[in-house]
Amino acid sequence: MVKKEQPLQGRPLIDVLAVVGVGLIGGSFALALRRAGVVGRVIGVGRSQETLRRAVDLGLVDETASAQDAAQQADIIFLSTPIGAMQGVLQSMQPYLRSNALITDGGSTKHDVVKAARLALGEKIAHFIPGHPIAGAETTGPEAAYAELYDDRNVILTPLEENSQADRDRLSRIWQSCGARVMFMDPYVHDQVLASVSHVPHFLASVFMGQVASAANSDQRFALAGTGFRDFTRIAAGSAEVWRDIFLSNREAVLAELDEVRLALDAAQQALQAEDGQALYDFLERAAVARRFWASRSGLK
Amino acid sequence: MVKKEQPLQGRPLIDVLAVVGVGLIGGSFALALRRAGVVGRVIGVGRSQETLRRAVDLGLVDETASAQDAAQQADIIFLSTPIGAMQGVLQSMQPYLRSNALITDGGSTKHDVVKAARLALGEKIAHFIPGHPIAGAETTGPEAAYAELYDDRNVILTPLEENSQADRDRLSRIWQSCGARVMFMDPYVHDQVLASVSHVPHFLASVFMGQVASAANSDQRFALAGTGFRDFTRIAAGSAEVWRDIFLSNREAVLAELDEVRLALDAAQQALQAEDGQALYDFLERAAVARRFWASRSGLK
Repeated sequence: MVKKEQPLQGRPLIDVLAVVGVGLIGGSFALALRRAGVVGRVIGVGRSQETLRRAVDLGLVDETASAQDAAQQADIIFLSTPIGAMQGVLQSMQPYLRSNALITDGGSTKHDVVKAARLALGEKIAHFIPGHPIAGAETTGPEAAYAELYDDRNVILTPLEENSQADRDRLSRIWQSCGARVMFMDPYVHDQVLASVSHVPHFLASVFMGQVASAANSDQRFALAGTGFRDFTRIAAGSAEVWRDIFLSNREAVLAELDEVRLALDAAQQALQAEDGQALYDFLERAAVARRFWASRSGLK
Repeated sequence: MVKKEQPLQGRPLIDVLAVVGVGLIGGSFALALRRAGVVGRVIGVGRSQETLRRAVDLGLVDETASAQDAAQQADIIFLSTPIGAMQGVLQSMQPYLRSNALITDGGSTKHDVVKAARLALGEKIAHFIPGHPIAGAETTGPEAAYAELYDDRNVILTPLEENSQADRDRLSRIWQSCGARVMFMDPYVHDQVLASVSHVPHFLASVFMGQVASAANSDQRFALAGTGFRDFTRIAAGSAEVWRDIFLSNREAVLAELDEVRLALDAAQQALQAEDGQALYDFLERAAVARRFWASRSGLK
């Protein structure tokens, strides 16, 4: 393996990495660290033996173990399960954590994950630094993982007051070695912002997709759906289990944002109802200008 | 120019083509016909001399002319202006149409365009076959045009009872030479189906984009928006003028579909409000299965 970055003092940044949940997010994390040459051994942990075997075959992880065995060996533990499963995993690892262990996660909400981690880890909460890589795809499972997933993407860390500066720096370096940009943020602010730009779009895309699919002439509709439909609904193909947990764990922020969207929808629909061409134009032009401006800034055109 | 397809009897399918509105849709139509080697001369018509000049420089059209001059010369007239401008264009062309002229359009709604065409063309209505290529992009203007836009895309024709079979066949061959698949449909059915799979997604994407842009912390939101946001909002960058006309011209069908989407949104939001994990999962899974099924069938993954 080509080492793209020389680890400090000839030792890898991570001796033993445990990845709990070896799908797109966890598998890509392992592959990105391998690509950077900063990880020694990678242990996969998960519910399905079949999935774990595929992760080994694909080279995402070197071996598999139970949560307990993995906790006894790992320096870094990355949780990439659905959010609803994290508390149970942390509970089963808690008694066996190494003194230098650093745990982080890839969950799309942070307030709820922090609450679950405090309950599960108790006095060992300082080991856990919550995180959220803003990266993903509509694909799932070990086969979807790839080393470039985090290149130039934002990773948000929402550290706890108990976390040491040394551990914060260590986790920042790890994500940077994956190609990502690291940002620090308050967990509540994170959840409100992500409700807006990630969770609400998924909710709306799924609502819309369900509405089209349940129409009497859905076959005819699908036959005429073009690239706009394709882009607008792409995220609706995501894992129902993952997204159920995201919505439940960020329920209040998502509901608050949905109410805001409804107000905007009311106004736009009223303009259409009233055949108010100027109001319609203004609403569409504001959205178009904002979207073009965002595209020019985001690097995600 | 390489001729990919030999025209019948050594003559091009179209001697003189007039394209009214030389942007993405009209410019790509001209380029696709040139690529197939089935068009002689292409005349560009439009409101802006500046845009027309760019269309000539880009090789979309050979020359420019007024609507009247173009009507006097063209065998085929393609209208790719915003829908609200079509009646005026047809009125100014009506007295000068050649006896063999065939007029068609690329408008995203059909009932309203038919109404405008009947008013403008009167006894010459048989010249007009309404059409709608299901293709597009968030880009606009002559620079956005490309010859491959219609490859493997559906083009819907909604012929009038006045149209001759010979003209229907002629227009089918023209679109097929652009690489498209031709379908025939009733204009009302077209408008209802397109309201669902094209107009409503655009309306919702624009509403959502406007809501995010008007939030107090919109900068922070945009900074954390990822690929899901990108895909979901891409269509909101489209031309406000074009889409205002689409919404106004298909107002009733769009409002009816929006009401259906609201009902689905109510149900999903209620499940989230009630923390009903099973109902949320079921709604998300139905949408995900439908989206994956559509992607596997559509060729638009």
